Amino acid sequence: MNGVGAHEVVVETPRHEETLVTLPLKNVKNILLAYRDRIIDLRRDPRLRHVLVFKNHGVAAGASLEHSHSQIIALPIVPKRVTEEIEGAKTYFHYKDRCVFCDIIRQELQQKHRIITENRFFVSIAPFASRFPFETWILPKTHSPDFEHMEVSQYEHAAQILSETLNRMNRVLTDPPYNYVIHTSSSPEIDADHYHWHIEIMPKLTKVAGFEWGTGFYINPTPPEEAAEYMREAK
Amino acid sequence: MNGVGAHEVVVETPRHEETLVTLPLKNVKNILLAYRDRIIDLRRDPRLRHVLVFKNHGVAAGASLEHSHSQIIALPIVPKRVTEEIEGAKTYFHYKDRCVFCDIIRQELQQKHRIITENRFFVSIAPFASRFPFETWILPKTHSPDFEHMEVSQYEHAAQILSETLNRMNRVLTDPPYNYVIHTSSSPEIDADHYHWHIEIMPKLTKVAGFEWGTGFYINPTPPEEAAEYMREAK
Repeated sequence: MNGVGAHEVVVETPRHEETLVTLPLKNVKNILLAYRDRIIDLRRDPRLRHVLVFKNHGVAAGASLEHSHSQIIALPIVPKRVTEEIEGAKTYFHYKDRCVFCDIIRQELQQKHRIITENRFFVSIAPFASRFPFETWILPKTHSPDFEHMEVSQYEHAAQILSETLNRMNRVLTDPPYNYVIHTSSSPEIDADHYHWHIEIMPKLTKVAGFEWGTGFYINPTPPEEAAEYMREAK
Repeated sequence: MNGVGAHEVVVETPRHEETLVTLPLKNVKNILLAYRDRIIDLRRDPRLRHVLVFKNHGVAAGASLEHSHSQIIALPIVPKRVTEEIEGAKTYFHYKDRCVFCDIIRQELQQKHRIITENRFFVSIAPFASRFPFETWILPKTHSPDFEHMEVSQYEHAAQILSETLNRMNRVLTDPPYNYVIHTSSSPEIDADHYHWHIEIMPKLTKVAGFEWGTGFYINPTPPEEAAEYMREAK
């Protein structure tokens, strides 16, 4: 491993007062397409092993700039957390012969307790083992290991559910600080069967403290069923 | 696994305005002996698989009470992070036939760049791969897998170096929020050769954001050599 990498900032709007919550759908779609284009381009460099797309919104979530932006970091190694998640999904696949995320989606759509919203191609849920209050995952209903190879029309549906989810979160929590991270495979050919890309949104309402640092476990005072109900009911 | 556990709060002083930094050494020693006694007692319950001792100081470090206190949580499972650290140490031991922490101590005492302070039994260092600015580890110079089986006189030396380290940190960073976690084996017989207990102190000066959540890697703008130099020079 050498010290190469890339760090890019996606300026989401020219207007300082706008955010992902207020931007028209068309602009949110263009942001997602910018992520896609940059991922595809950065993947061309064989020294870069993983491309991470994330957003920090609000000071408590680590945003050092107020102007609405997201970040793309390309790394010369596959990160620890990415490997753990993909290995976990692989273990499940070997055991069940099904994708764990497909199974989660099927079960959540049946039970409905933790569904926040859905459209034709995506579903937004409060995950069963939420680490944070109002943690939210957006998953494509159709199995796919990576974010960057969808049909163009699907980015429109992704933009719609991301915008709607953030708008609901905003109404319930009044402009909360949050991070989101796009979880996507850096080897979609290898991970084709067992990995399923998705977006994890983490509002920062609680503090990570000694217990979390010492264990890797998270204390979450808000059950996901309650969080999902609040989010569903938000107008 | 069932849902049993214990959560205890160690009230470190009856006086609201005192902290670990201002308390006399004798009181700091008594706090460490309280940790020891409670760990030994909680270990008697076979349902409890790991006892975690930690402290959150300051709002940014997640302290919800201002009065100086630390916490003991006993869990029915060995936490993910504890397992990872012990497994890592075991892998190193199988490869080198030496404890990784003993090797770190030997190398740091030789090079001296990252040493903060030491006494007869303990050393305080800025670890080579510090995740946070001014992250500090306190390690016993003599190999031992667990915190709770030292001779009583050693807790005095542990109290001395903990107090001195926190005092130096306080002078350099002006009462920073911080967490500390005692890293100790929950199976000292099994981990006797390869694990080495220690205290990790993490000042909370930076924010954990999207990059850290997405990767498990940490961006640290302060080299440990610089942090150690500031800490050494603090009067």
